[in-house]
Amino acid sequence: MAYDLLRAFGRRIRWGMVGGGIDSLIGEIHRMSARLDNRYELVAGAMSVDPAVARETAELCLVDPERSYEDYRDMAEAEAAREDGVEVVTIATPPHLHAEIATLFMERGIDVICEKPMTRTLEEAVDLKQSVTRSGRIFALTHCYTGYPMVREARALVKKGAIGAVRQVECDFPSGPFLVEEPQRDKRHWRFRPEFMGVDAILGEIGTHAYQMAHFVSGRLPVALSAHMSVLTPGRETFDDAHIVLKYEDGALGRMWLSFVAAGNEHGLAFHIYGTEGSLKWHQERPDQLWLQHAAEPARRLTPGHPDRMTPEGFHACRLREGHPDGYVLAFANLYRDFADIFFARALGRSGATPYAHFPTVEDGVDTMRFYAAAAKSNAQAGAWIEL
Amino acid sequence: MAYDLLRAFGRRIRWGMVGGGIDSLIGEIHRMSARLDNRYELVAGAMSVDPAVARETAELCLVDPERSYEDYRDMAEAEAAREDGVEVVTIATPPHLHAEIATLFMERGIDVICEKPMTRTLEEAVDLKQSVTRSGRIFALTHCYTGYPMVREARALVKKGAIGAVRQVECDFPSGPFLVEEPQRDKRHWRFRPEFMGVDAILGEIGTHAYQMAHFVSGRLPVALSAHMSVLTPGRETFDDAHIVLKYEDGALGRMWLSFVAAGNEHGLAFHIYGTEGSLKWHQERPDQLWLQHAAEPARRLTPGHPDRMTPEGFHACRLREGHPDGYVLAFANLYRDFADIFFARALGRSGATPYAHFPTVEDGVDTMRFYAAAAKSNAQAGAWIEL
Amino acid sequence: MAYDLLRAFGRRIRWGMVGGGIDSLIGEIHRMSARLDNRYELVAGAMSVDPAVARETAELCLVDPERSYEDYRDMAEAEAAREDGVEVVTIATPPHLHAEIATLFMERGIDVICEKPMTRTLEEAVDLKQSVTRSGRIFALTHCYTGYPMVREARALVKKGAIGAVRQVECDFPSGPFLVEEPQRDKRHWRFRPEFMGVDAILGEIGTHAYQMAHFVSGRLPVALSAHMSVLTPGRETFDDAHIVLKYEDGALGRMWLSFVAAGNEHGLAFHIYGTEGSLKWHQERPDQLWLQHAAEPARRLTPGHPDRMTPEGFHACRLREGHPDGYVLAFANLYRDFADIFFARALGRSGATPYAHFPTVEDGVDTMRFYAAAAKSNAQAGAWIEL
Amino acid sequence: MAYDLLRAFGRRIRWGMVGGGIDSLIGEIHRMSARLDNRYELVAGAMSVDPAVARETAELCLVDPERSYEDYRDMAEAEAAREDGVEVVTIATPPHLHAEIATLFMERGIDVICEKPMTRTLEEAVDLKQSVTRSGRIFALTHCYTGYPMVREARALVKKGAIGAVRQVECDFPSGPFLVEEPQRDKRHWRFRPEFMGVDAILGEIGTHAYQMAHFVSGRLPVALSAHMSVLTPGRETFDDAHIVLKYEDGALGRMWLSFVAAGNEHGLAFHIYGTEGSLKWHQERPDQLWLQHAAEPARRLTPGHPDRMTPEGFHACRLREGHPDGYVLAFANLYRDFADIFFARALGRSGATPYAHFPTVEDGVDTMRFYAAAAKSNAQAGAWIEL
Repeated sequence: MAYDLLRAFGRRIRWGMVGGGIDSLIGEIHRMSARLDNRYELVAGAMSVDPAVARETAELCLVDPERSYEDYRDMAEAEAAREDGVEVVTIATPPHLHAEIATLFMERGIDVICEKPMTRTLEEAVDLKQSVTRSGRIFALTHCYTGYPMVREARALVKKGAIGAVRQVECDFPSGPFLVEEPQRDKRHWRFRPEFMGVDAILGEIGTHAYQMAHFVSGRLPVALSAHMSVLTPGRETFDDAHIVLKYEDGALGRMWLSFVAAGNEHGLAFHIYGTEGSLKWHQERPDQLWLQHAAEPARRLTPGHPDRMTPEGFHACRLREGHPDGYVLAFANLYRDFADIFFARALGRSGATPYAHFPTVEDGVDTMRFYAAAAKSNAQAGAWIEL
Repeated sequence: MAYDLLRAFGRRIRWGMVGGGIDSLIGEIHRMSARLDNRYELVAGAMSVDPAVARETAELCLVDPERSYEDYRDMAEAEAAREDGVEVVTIATPPHLHAEIATLFMERGIDVICEKPMTRTLEEAVDLKQSVTRSGRIFALTHCYTGYPMVREARALVKKGAIGAVRQVECDFPSGPFLVEEPQRDKRHWRFRPEFMGVDAILGEIGTHAYQMAHFVSGRLPVALSAHMSVLTPGRETFDDAHIVLKYEDGALGRMWLSFVAAGNEHGLAFHIYGTEGSLKWHQERPDQLWLQHAAEPARRLTPGHPDRMTPEGFHACRLREGHPDGYVLAFANLYRDFADIFFARALGRSGATPYAHFPTVEDGVDTMRFYAAAAKSNAQAGAWIEL
Repeated sequence: MAYDLLRAFGRRIRWGMVGGGIDSLIGEIHRMSARLDNRYELVAGAMSVDPAVARETAELCLVDPERSYEDYRDMAEAEAAREDGVEVVTIATPPHLHAEIATLFMERGIDVICEKPMTRTLEEAVDLKQSVTRSGRIFALTHCYTGYPMVREARALVKKGAIGAVRQVECDFPSGPFLVEEPQRDKRHWRFRPEFMGVDAILGEIGTHAYQMAHFVSGRLPVALSAHMSVLTPGRETFDDAHIVLKYEDGALGRMWLSFVAAGNEHGLAFHIYGTEGSLKWHQERPDQLWLQHAAEPARRLTPGHPDRMTPEGFHACRLREGHPDGYVLAFANLYRDFADIFFARALGRSGATPYAHFPTVEDGVDTMRFYAAAAKSNAQAGAWIEL
Repeated sequence: MAYDLLRAFGRRIRWGMVGGGIDSLIGEIHRMSARLDNRYELVAGAMSVDPAVARETAELCLVDPERSYEDYRDMAEAEAAREDGVEVVTIATPPHLHAEIATLFMERGIDVICEKPMTRTLEEAVDLKQSVTRSGRIFALTHCYTGYPMVREARALVKKGAIGAVRQVECDFPSGPFLVEEPQRDKRHWRFRPEFMGVDAILGEIGTHAYQMAHFVSGRLPVALSAHMSVLTPGRETFDDAHIVLKYEDGALGRMWLSFVAAGNEHGLAFHIYGTEGSLKWHQERPDQLWLQHAAEPARRLTPGHPDRMTPEGFHACRLREGHPDGYVLAFANLYRDFADIFFARALGRSGATPYAHFPTVEDGVDTMRFYAAAAKSNAQAGAWIEL
C-alpha cells in the first residue's frame, strides 16, 4: 500500500530548501511536489540570496522565522546541530552552487534532492559523486520528466522487449521561451548570460533532460556524439539551438534537437524510440499517451490508470484512474514520493520494500555532465565525433 | 500574490473528513488537493463506517488516533467542543448522507466542502440550502471539473462575448466503467445498486457534473428538458445511458449524453458551446486545450500558463507555465485553494480580496438536483417535456 | 485485378449528366469521380436549367455541343434513340426532380446514378422504387461517405463481431455553412428557402447522410424515433438544427445530431458505434483513421492501405498504400467504380464477379425518406415517438 | 475559371507513358492524376520492360495495342512520326533511365513529366538540364507533395512574411517500409539493391522529396551540409537512415531525418519552419492541416477550401470546400493540372494566364541531385561539412 512506509515511520520528513524563493518558478513546484503525498514538512530554508525574498518566502510557507537563514552555510550548521533539524534538503539554486551546497549538507548527515543540471562542470560532477559515496547519503537529481507514468511504462516496455532491440533513440527538447529579440543584458535570465553558465548553457538547461530521458527509457548510454550549435535569436550571446547525433556501441543511433527558438513548441520534450520490432513515442505536452507501434499492427494508444493494462512499474507511478490526466506536478511528485519511501525503508531497515521506486542519481548526473562537456567540445570542433 | 492571505492568516486551516477512507478512490483526491497549496492540515476524521478502515486511514494520514471517530455525530460533537477543533470538514460519504452530515457540522459553526451529487433528492437539496443560509457557513460542492484553467477561461470568454450570443450548449459525459456484463449484486458499486441511489443514479453521478459544467461555462440555466434513459448492459438494474434535450428561455438549445457503456471514452466529460459568432470546445481527457472557432477564421487552440494569452479569471487557475500540463488534481485543488482564500478573507475581514475565487455553491447543488428530478420524471413519461 | 472487368468490356461507359452545371459544387465532384478510374466518358448532358450555363458546362467538359440539351426530356428522347446514346446518367438536380428524371431515363433503358436526398417525399420514393423494379435498371444513390475505406472497414468489423452486439449507434452531422445571420431571401441557397424543400430540408440534406451511414455501418435499422428541431440562426425560415433519439428492436439506441449552426465543425459527419465488447469511432474530417476500442485494451488506430491489416471488404476500397491519405473524391469515386463494375459484370454475364462492390440503393433511399418523414412528424408533435 | 484554358484548347492532351506498368504502384497514381481534371488522354505507352506486362497494362488502360510499345526508343520514333502522336510523355521508370528517355522524347518535340529522383547522378542531372534548355520543352519533376493545398499555402505565407525571417528549416521523411529483417536479395525492391541505385539510394528516394519540400516552402537553398548515414536493418546492404544538418548563407539552419526503419510513421514527410516571428508546421499524414504559431498567440489550425481564409496561391490548389479532405491523389493531380494549363497557355499564346500554376522543374532536379551527391560525400567523410 502506498502509505505503509509513511505509517510505519510515523511522521513526515523534516525538510529544508536552499534556493527556490517566491521569485523563482521552480521553488513552488518542489513544495507542491513535497506536500502532495504528505511525506515532507518544510521546517527550514535559505530560500534566496536576497534576504527580503528569503524572509518573505519563509513567511508564505509558514516556516518558523528563526529557521529562515540568509546563508546556506549557517543553515547547514544550525540545522545539523538541532535535535529536530532537517533530514532532507532540496537545492534549487543556480547550478554552479549545487556541488558545494550538496556536499556541505551531506557531510552533516543530511540527504539531498538537487535540481538539474547537477553541476557547472564535469569535474564538479565527478567530485560530487565522491561526496555522495563518502557520505553515504541519498542523493536525487530532479530530472522530473521521468516521473510521468507513461515514461516509466515506456521504460518497462523496452526492458520487456516490446519493441525488440533498440535501433534508434530520438529525443528532442524544443522549448518555448521564444523571443523575437534578446532583451538588454540586465533583463535576461541568468541562463542566457554567458558569465553565469557559459555560452553552452542550453546543454545543461534542456540538454541534460533529453539525455537523461533517452537513457532512462532506452536503458542505453551512447559512446560518441557529434554536435552542431547555433545562435539564432538576434542579439543573443549564448547558443539557443543544438543538433546532436549520437552513436551507441552496437551501431544504434541517437538524435537530439534542443532549441529555445522553436515557436509552436511550448515545452516539447519528446522521445520516439525505434526497435527491431516496433516503436514507442511520447510527448511531454500530452503526457498521458504513449504510442506503441508494431510493424504489422495498428498503432496502440496506451494510457495510464488501469492496473490490467500496465506493467507494475508503470502503474506504480499512477495516482488516478484512467481518464484523469496526471499532469506535470504529479510526475514531479513521484520523485519526491519515491525518495521519501527509500528514506523510510532505510530508516526502518526494510530493504526491498520499494521495488519500483525511482529517481535519477548522482551517476546519472555524471553521465549528463559528460554529455554536456562532449557536446560543447564537438561543437567547438565543427561537429567532430567526441567519445563519451 | 497567491499566498498572501495564507500569510496573513498565519497558519493552515484545521480540517477534517467524513468518509473518504483508504478503500475509496475519491478520499485521497481530496487530501492531495487540500495539501497541494499548504492551506489545510488534516487533524480529525470519521473516514469510514468500517471502524478498522477508519482507524487505518487515520494512521496512514498521520491523524491523532484520538481524533479518529467511528461516528460522524461523535466527531461533530467532540470537534465543536475543542478549542482546536476542525474549522472545515469535507464530506465524501455516499450522497444520501450529505444533507444530514453537512447540517450537523454547519450548525456547530464548521464550514463544509461536500462531494456531489449534493443530496439524494431535490427536497433534501432545498432543505440543505436553508441550513446553509441559516448557519451562515461557507458551503462548497466539489464539481471539480470547473477548476480546470481552460474551463474557467471558457467561462470568461463566453462572458466577454467571444462567441456572441449562446445558441447551443452541448455537454456530454460518456464515462468508462464499461462492463461486458453486470457482476453479481454484492460485487457491484453502490451506484449500480437500485436500493442505494435508485435506478436513476447516473443522473447524479455524471449528469450533475455535465449540468453544472454547462451552466458554469454558458452562464445559462435551461427552462425545460426531455430525457430518454436506457439500460444497455446485460443484467444491469440501473439506467446506464441517457439522452437529454434541453431548452433555454430564448430558444437556445442544450444537448446532453450520459453513458456508462461508452467504450473508448475513459472519462469523457466534454462541452462544445456554439454562439452566434463562434464556438468553444473542451474535453476533459485533454484539459489543457480549449478550441475557439470563429465563423470566418482558422480554429485557435488556446492553452494555459501565459498571462498575456488568457483572461485574468482563467490565469488565476494556473500554477504552471505554458507547456506543463496541469491535470486533474490541480484542477480539483483549485476548489480547495479558492475555498481557503475565501475562508481567510472572511476571517481577516478583507472582502473583495478574492475576485476570481470560485467554487460551486449550494445554489448550484439545488439546480443540479432540480435537473436530476426533472430528467427522471421526463424519462418516466416517455420523454415528455418537463419544466425546470 | 481492379481493371479486369473494364478490359473485358473493352471501352468506357457512355455517360451523361442532368444537372451539375459549373455553377454547382457537386457537378464537378461527380465528373472527377467518374473520370478517376477511367470507366466513364461524358458524352451528353442537360447540365443546367439555364441554357447559357448548360452550354458553357458542356464546352468546358468537351461534350459535343449537339449532345448538350436544354431540357432533360429532350435528352432522354434523343439519347435513347441514338446507337451510341448514353448508357448511364447521373442526376444532380434539386431533389424534387429526381424521381421524375430517374424514371424517364430508366424507362428508356438507361441506368441511373442519383444525388441525395433521393426524392422530395416518401411517396415519391416509394414510387421510384417501383420504377426501378419495373425497369430492371441499376440505380445508385450517392451517399458518398460510404465509399471511404475506413467506413467500409468499420462495417466489415461490425459484421465480424469485432465489437460484440451493437448497443448504441451515434451518428452526427454538424456541418459548416455557419452564418451570423440569414441573408436576403434571393441570396439564399435553395435548401434554405422553404418554398423549395420545405422547412425540414436539413433532414434531407444532411440527415439522410447520417441515417444511411448509421445503417450502413451498424447493419441495423431503427424502429422508432423522437425528434426535436430548431431554428437557431436569426432570420432563418428553415430548421437548422435537429436532435433525434432512435430505438432499435432489441433495445439498442441511436442518437443523431444535425446542425448548420455548428461553428468549429467544417463537415463533421461522424459515427461512434458501441457494442457489448467495444466501440468503433470515425470522423469524416479525418477519414483515414478508424478507432477500435476494446473494453480492456488500449485504443487501436486503424488505417487504410495495407492488405494484411484490413478486411478484404475494407481493402477493396483502397487505391493507395498506407500513409497516403485517400480523401473525399476517392471515396466518392468508389461508388462510381463499383457501379461501373456491376454494370460491366451484368453486360458480361459474370455474376459474382464483384463481391465487394457497393453503393446505396433505391431501398436505402426509401429508408432514408421514411426517416425524413418520421422525424418531421415527430418534431411537429413536440418530439412524440413515431414508428418507422 | 479552372477549365477555361482547356475549353480554349478544345481537346485533351495526347499523352503517353514510359514505365508505370500495372506491377508498379506509381503508374496508376499518374494515370488517376492525369484523368482527374480531364486534361489528358492516354494514347500510347511503353509501360514495362516485360512485354507481357506492357501489353496487359495497355489493355487495361484502353490504349490501342498498336501504340503499346516494347521499347521506349520505338515509341519515341513512332509517336514523333504520327500526326496524332503523343504531345506529353510521363517517365516512371527506375531513375537511371530518366535522363536518356527524357532527352530522347524532348529532342522529338515531346514535353516531359518525370518521376523523381530526376537522375542517377548529378552529372546526368546537369546534362538533362542542358537537354531541356536546348529543346525548349516543358519539363516537370513529380515531387508530388508540393501539390497539397496547405503546402502551397505555407509557401505563400512564408513569402508574405507571416513568420518573419526564416531561422530554421526542419524537414523529415521517416517512411514506412519497415522490416524486421531484409529479405533475400531477389525479393528486394530495386531501391534496396546496391547494384541498381547504390548504397545511398535513400537520398534519392525520400531525401530529394524532403530537400525539395524544404526549398519549396522556405524559398531558401542551403549552402553546406553534414550527413551521417547508417544501416540499421539486419542484413540490409543499403543505408536506411540518415541525419543531415544544413546551413544557410545567413546562419539559418536546416535539419533533415530520412528513415526506412521508422515504425510508427507510415509516410511521414513533415516540415516545421521557424522564423523570427512564428512557425509553420505540416505533416503529410494529415495534409489538410497547417499549423501557424505566432510567438505570443494561440496556435492556429489552417485548413483548405475557403477563399476568404487562404492566399490566392493556396486556394488555387483547392478543388473542394472546407471539411472535405483532398488527399494524396488530388495533390499529385495539381502538378498534372498545372502542367496542362502551362501547356495550353503556350499553345494559345496566352502568357500570364497561369499565375499560380506550379511544378518542380529541371533546376529543382539539379538542386536535389547536388544535395544527393553532397550528402553521400559528407557521410563518406564521417560527417564533414560539404558545400552545396
